[in-house]
Amino acid sequence: MPKISQKGINMPESPIRKLVPYAEKAKSKGHHVYHLNIGQPDIKTPQGALQAVKDANFEVLEYSHSAGFESYRKKLATYYQGHHLNVDFSDIIITTGGSEALMFALGSTLDPDDEIIIPEPFYANYNGFSISNGVKIVPVMSSIDNGFALPSISEFEKLITPKTKAILICNPGNPTGYLYSEQEMQQLTDLVVKHDLFLIADEVYREFAYDGFKHISVMSIPALANHAIMVDSVSKRYSMCGARIGCIVSKNKELMTAAMKFAQARLSPPTFAQIASEAALDTPESYFDEVITEYRERRDVFIKALQEIDGVQVTAPHGSFYCVAKFPVKNADDFAKWLLEDYDLNGETVMIAPAAGFYSTPGVGLDEARMAYVLKKEDLLRSAQILKEALKVYQGIEK
Amino acid sequence: MPKISQKGINMPESPIRKLVPYAEKAKSKGHHVYHLNIGQPDIKTPQGALQAVKDANFEVLEYSHSAGFESYRKKLATYYQGHHLNVDFSDIIITTGGSEALMFALGSTLDPDDEIIIPEPFYANYNGFSISNGVKIVPVMSSIDNGFALPSISEFEKLITPKTKAILICNPGNPTGYLYSEQEMQQLTDLVVKHDLFLIADEVYREFAYDGFKHISVMSIPALANHAIMVDSVSKRYSMCGARIGCIVSKNKELMTAAMKFAQARLSPPTFAQIASEAALDTPESYFDEVITEYRERRDVFIKALQEIDGVQVTAPHGSFYCVAKFPVKNADDFAKWLLEDYDLNGETVMIAPAAGFYSTPGVGLDEARMAYVLKKEDLLRSAQILKEALKVYQGIEK
Repeated sequence: MPKISQKGINMPESPIRKLVPYAEKAKSKGHHVYHLNIGQPDIKTPQGALQAVKDANFEVLEYSHSAGFESYRKKLATYYQGHHLNVDFSDIIITTGGSEALMFALGSTLDPDDEIIIPEPFYANYNGFSISNGVKIVPVMSSIDNGFALPSISEFEKLITPKTKAILICNPGNPTGYLYSEQEMQQLTDLVVKHDLFLIADEVYREFAYDGFKHISVMSIPALANHAIMVDSVSKRYSMCGARIGCIVSKNKELMTAAMKFAQARLSPPTFAQIASEAALDTPESYFDEVITEYRERRDVFIKALQEIDGVQVTAPHGSFYCVAKFPVKNADDFAKWLLEDYDLNGETVMIAPAAGFYSTPGVGLDEARMAYVLKKEDLLRSAQILKEALKVYQGIEK
Repeated sequence: MPKISQKGINMPESPIRKLVPYAEKAKSKGHHVYHLNIGQPDIKTPQGALQAVKDANFEVLEYSHSAGFESYRKKLATYYQGHHLNVDFSDIIITTGGSEALMFALGSTLDPDDEIIIPEPFYANYNGFSISNGVKIVPVMSSIDNGFALPSISEFEKLITPKTKAILICNPGNPTGYLYSEQEMQQLTDLVVKHDLFLIADEVYREFAYDGFKHISVMSIPALANHAIMVDSVSKRYSMCGARIGCIVSKNKELMTAAMKFAQARLSPPTFAQIASEAALDTPESYFDEVITEYRERRDVFIKALQEIDGVQVTAPHGSFYCVAKFPVKNADDFAKWLLEDYDLNGETVMIAPAAGFYSTPGVGLDEARMAYVLKKEDLLRSAQILKEALKVYQGIEK
């Protein structure tokens, strides 16, 4: 029997999805499972985006341009400009989700064995994309104690070697919800300019900033013109995760030439979803106002309820719709499985994403879990209540 | 300014798309360009596939399962079984086009610096996918003189080293149109079993077999159970190139577990396009009968007209909708550019894909070009006439 690659062996299982079989078991027992484990919003997709696909009339479902429809790229550039980002349509390549944009960014900046520095905890699939590209993640630790703020620049500098080609941030953060401040963005800017590195910014949660805090894009910082690579996606902004449309954006022409060759090799991004995504740009501002208000309220309700649980540590994040909480358990992975396999409160239980999978340093974050507040407020309150009651039982068992 | 990766530098420009700026110039002069350069069929997409997307009603465009809709995988397995392929639904992962299936296949079988043997000329994007994965293509030469038949097994064996992990074939062939015989498939089977290699078969043109010749899938050969990886796509079968839906299929469970981790990292294939692809499976057999008849007639008309041009060498392929022809020119790349930049016959010209980009051995195939017979018969005849007249002029210039 032929052997699979070491890469294939090393690819991590998704920490978000690996508990799915346990959830299925819970459901087969008739239990209701509140899904806090995945960032699949319940928010309605803008009607105009869905309608545009219904209204599209063509006889042949053709390839699009490898960089995506020109009309879409132009309209998207206008959208970014409206948000004070310095983006021309020629700076954009439409990708199959933010995932593909990240693959293109890594492929265009790092060779096998090169290093990329990422504050951890980080979006777990960065591990998969890095292994897939044969490159090495060098984590720099952020801490739950200050809400996962940017680690000090001296910590980054300790890790920079000749193999370091880029720094990758997720802003606002998945899984942390942390929104980098103007000062932090300035520090990162100085750092990448000083060491001549790329700064890849995963900004797919840009709109999700609360409490009057403003998201600062790498595309709004003039000194980053040649350094910044923005990764974006329609998935969360318009609750269109299934579209699989994102983009890679940079003013570095050499970088975009390389990214374009990766884009040509896979021919084109999906056509139907581009039609929906282009139409989504006409979504009225009121849609976002409602969505942001809804998420802020969800956050407030959910974080407060979590904070009221004995032994749970969590701070209210200013961005995205995730939080990482520390639980009074030895191993959040075991706890998460137990919640699905052995626990229910009146036939209901919750699914959380153990945070260890969001760290690349082994043994860190074992008592933490990521939760997405993508459910209705009453469901979030109920989820927190289940966690509270469950912990009372579990702590007894774990001792 | 930060430096891009060597990978990004090494990625080849698509030989199919790199002449696009020249074609745009020709069009800006008001010339009509017959596109023989790209396999974008003019055949109508089955109405049922397009209608299914219009009829789909949901409020949230959600992620699908990372392996694709279960309903789609089940129906697809039934389709394969109907074509005598031994495929269970659990052997299938739906991908974003055949391109992604190839990426998963390479990632799951080869580590950086490993080698994959591919008969050349081959689909140009295999180069890009290999560079992207950091693996090395070892070409084995096939010849226009026998219509690009399978090179002798001894030629393969000369190239096998401990780094060789897989053999990749495209059957029927893009760019050659060659359809491997039962005997050739048996030879390949014996070879990969003997050397314990994977056999990756790009079968996206399966339906396009002419003259009573039968396509033989790797999934129909019992001895290949642990060795075969099939790559498939809806792009050509249903003229749905823009859907970006394909799949990777294998009965090797270890391989599929690895592929699934790659699939999870990118979350899911596009939802709209899966709806269309699932519905496309209901396309009546008569659709294919008409399509195949049309392509066979196109091939007959076009190949005959090409063969009548002085100095052009081409044989009628039994599969796909491409052919590779040898032209009486020194450099087909220069000729292709000249056709667009400096030539027209009554305001019309043709775009061909120089074949050098389909070889990985430098300096080979310089006088060859790939042409796709995806246009109406009268347009193909007209294209051949333009090529004939153009060659008379060009041969005078080139001397």
